[in-house]
Amino acid sequence: MQSKLTQLKTLLNEIHDINSSAALLAWDQQTYMPEGGTEGRSYQLSTLETLAHLKFTSAEVGNLLEELLPYADQIDPDSDDARLIKVTHRHFQKSTRVPTELVAEFAQTSARAHPVWQQARAENNFALFQPVLERIFELRRRYAALFAPYDHIYDPLLDDYEPGLKTADVQAIFQALRPQQVALIQAISRQTPPEDAFIHQHYDEQKQWDFGVDVITRFGYDWTRGRQDRAPHPFTQGFGIDDVRITTRFPENNGVSGLFSTMHEAGHALYELGVDHALARLPLAHGASLALHESQSRMWENLVGRSLPFWEYFYPRMQTYFPAQLGKINLDQFYKAINLVKPTFIRVEADEATYNLHIMLRLEIEIALIEGSLEVRDLPEAWNMRMKDYLGVTPPTDTLGVLQDVHWSMGLIGYFSTYALGNLISAQLWESIHRDIPDLEDQIRTAEFSSLLGWLRENLHRHGAKFEPQEMVQRITASKIDPQPYMRYLQTKYGAIYGL
Amino acid sequence: MQSKLTQLKTLLNEIHDINSSAALLAWDQQTYMPEGGTEGRSYQLSTLETLAHLKFTSAEVGNLLEELLPYADQIDPDSDDARLIKVTHRHFQKSTRVPTELVAEFAQTSARAHPVWQQARAENNFALFQPVLERIFELRRRYAALFAPYDHIYDPLLDDYEPGLKTADVQAIFQALRPQQVALIQAISRQTPPEDAFIHQHYDEQKQWDFGVDVITRFGYDWTRGRQDRAPHPFTQGFGIDDVRITTRFPENNGVSGLFSTMHEAGHALYELGVDHALARLPLAHGASLALHESQSRMWENLVGRSLPFWEYFYPRMQTYFPAQLGKINLDQFYKAINLVKPTFIRVEADEATYNLHIMLRLEIEIALIEGSLEVRDLPEAWNMRMKDYLGVTPPTDTLGVLQDVHWSMGLIGYFSTYALGNLISAQLWESIHRDIPDLEDQIRTAEFSSLLGWLRENLHRHGAKFEPQEMVQRITASKIDPQPYMRYLQTKYGAIYGL
Repeated sequence: MQSKLTQLKTLLNEIHDINSSAALLAWDQQTYMPEGGTEGRSYQLSTLETLAHLKFTSAEVGNLLEELLPYADQIDPDSDDARLIKVTHRHFQKSTRVPTELVAEFAQTSARAHPVWQQARAENNFALFQPVLERIFELRRRYAALFAPYDHIYDPLLDDYEPGLKTADVQAIFQALRPQQVALIQAISRQTPPEDAFIHQHYDEQKQWDFGVDVITRFGYDWTRGRQDRAPHPFTQGFGIDDVRITTRFPENNGVSGLFSTMHEAGHALYELGVDHALARLPLAHGASLALHESQSRMWENLVGRSLPFWEYFYPRMQTYFPAQLGKINLDQFYKAINLVKPTFIRVEADEATYNLHIMLRLEIEIALIEGSLEVRDLPEAWNMRMKDYLGVTPPTDTLGVLQDVHWSMGLIGYFSTYALGNLISAQLWESIHRDIPDLEDQIRTAEFSSLLGWLRENLHRHGAKFEPQEMVQRITASKIDPQPYMRYLQTKYGAIYGL
Repeated sequence: MQSKLTQLKTLLNEIHDINSSAALLAWDQQTYMPEGGTEGRSYQLSTLETLAHLKFTSAEVGNLLEELLPYADQIDPDSDDARLIKVTHRHFQKSTRVPTELVAEFAQTSARAHPVWQQARAENNFALFQPVLERIFELRRRYAALFAPYDHIYDPLLDDYEPGLKTADVQAIFQALRPQQVALIQAISRQTPPEDAFIHQHYDEQKQWDFGVDVITRFGYDWTRGRQDRAPHPFTQGFGIDDVRITTRFPENNGVSGLFSTMHEAGHALYELGVDHALARLPLAHGASLALHESQSRMWENLVGRSLPFWEYFYPRMQTYFPAQLGKINLDQFYKAINLVKPTFIRVEADEATYNLHIMLRLEIEIALIEGSLEVRDLPEAWNMRMKDYLGVTPPTDTLGVLQDVHWSMGLIGYFSTYALGNLISAQLWESIHRDIPDLEDQIRTAEFSSLLGWLRENLHRHGAKFEPQEMVQRITASKIDPQPYMRYLQTKYGAIYGL
């Protein structure tokens, strides 16, 4: 059996190398590639992705997995080997279920949809995007149908991002959350908002960069195993456990946007950098799911980076970087300004209190479209109605409404809820961390993050993708994903800021 | 036949994509990769290189080539298709002749040799390097022997870099050249050397960068299809015809070293950027050989970049970049300083007049080692003897002598002569260009390079690797590689500078 396992690992290593190489092609495309490289790059990416797919869905991998499955049942079910076999088998089953024609048609349709969406958004013309979006939802429905039987046709889509999670679970979580979040926002809206004009002055890009580097170096980001580059849409990309790079964008008309983005991406990177080296070059050498990943980026960005203890240490430092902008602003004013709650049309600009509501409306709409209870042509109306209900605002244009996100144009259906689930998990982990590290806030107040990072590595990071997200959360917090810690977090934080 | 040809091209396209991806892995390793990525990167490179090799040496490619060879004989022998089939068949034959075990052993030995060489060089300890170097020459001898019969056992090694070229050809060329170069250097050594201390002041790196960008932009380097980055050892890397990037290093204690390096690499890049798009993603989408490539880098660096007409335009501009360093130095002083002839121990620091002699001694030594007429243990003595004979200097240490170059430690035997051949070809092409563009010098004097670049594209660049180097040179200049134009060039240039 050991020789079969070695054979499987060798194949998976090679596939990992090909995927890591493709990741570098993508990273380079977003950072340094001259525009002339576009066509060649798309060929290179497509060739590597096809190679990896063919190698993974080969009979050789299938046979090895069949032979190894009984062995996985005999050994410690939590061992790396047992998990590797089971997780890989699950990927294999999903990958081989889909006919090549459907894969190709979906790839072509989403490639075609992306520029159409860009134009529709630029021209505020939803009708232009409608036909190709209908096709995308149709193809995703056909994809999901391949995995019948299921409790809900949305399950297989969600499962691509959150293995094992069911639509009903997410609906129940969001059902419990929504009225509480709406009530909180309404309570806040009755208070006088803090002043935040000083955030929107000119802040030199290089100084923002330097301050951000200061901060994430203190977090424990290891520059010998990563780097930071500029990119128009910030992202984190790993090429193995020991090379995980972040990218950031620093708008000069905002003093903190780039900084929070840096902390967010560093949170993603710290997760991947913390995976056990025993899992290197295997499919387990990644985060457990997008929601778990987001729990890490949001934790460093928000629970750490938007907290008062954090700024007790870092605000005086930031003032020395930007004396003209912040010299006369005190810590209390600054802290309140960066935690301003204000409903916006745009998800990516939303604050912690309103963010999840943007997600809920997207999830409800996706489910209705996949079920067939909503037609694509009725999307703008359904969107705007929910914006009014949940956030109390109505987008004046579809560009600021239903056309704002790139995801659907890329065929990413089932993705959005991972953002909100990440918020919930971050607060849930935070309560567990507080139990284990009672003086966590005092540590943060002195920019001491090593116990926090150590805790995350020990309890979460090192396991990589060995456990499904619900199981991972259960193992750490003794509960499945639960919205209440996040509500407690919001109520405490905003209760103090707004005097509720 | 068309369908067979399409099948072959599809396979070659995929192999090209894999090789281009590997090239990006290598580029990134030399430019941006954090040190933690080293181990993962070596796996990624090895996986992609193995994939490309297996795909290329497959029975599928072999059978298609066998079926297509008669077809190639029926169509226009200069057509892209005929050349593609023949050149690919030649590669295929060479690639499949070598047993996998020998490939693996050679790869392992050269991987092992590189750090040993680094240590030996650092410690001036040739004896440390000797055993692994013996093994490398032994393995290269076994490799060459696989291609018997041949005129000379060195032929197959040379052929890896200069397809079709024979050892006897190169020996005849160098035999004719050596006494003339030695005589020229001796004549120069009797003159008073120009003053060049002002070159060795502090020159700000960013200003050097900016001036270099000015220059190669005027050459015609297209920044939408390339870019420049810093690297400790400058190189040019293409990822397809429309993305060819250069790297440069700007030592701040030298005002021109980085600049000439930029021009040199831009010359390589202009060659690859000029290949006909009909050859894209095929094995012909590269330069014809290393010597042809070097003819382009040397032409832009030396025949253009170290010429008086070039500096008549650019020297006043350079003075505005560096008024403190160059404000009181006139054009004549500057021109003579950058063309100082002075024998050095180190090849990469050699001037145009002495450079080829460094190559000749390496070629003679390589041939003697491969033949067995020289033992590796006697290398330092053989090296120093020739240095004395050809250049009149004796390296005080092996670090400054036989241990200076990286090539042998990487198993690159047969490579060195391409540098000297590139010099010769550059001057040979230059005479042809002068015949076709009689006012070339006046154009250069006004920084007008478009006719020159157009000529190179039309006569050389667009053909890519369709023709073997001797054939390529013959087609352009109506003569095979000939040392006399280079000697005429040196004699005219240095005759004027040194008043010979």
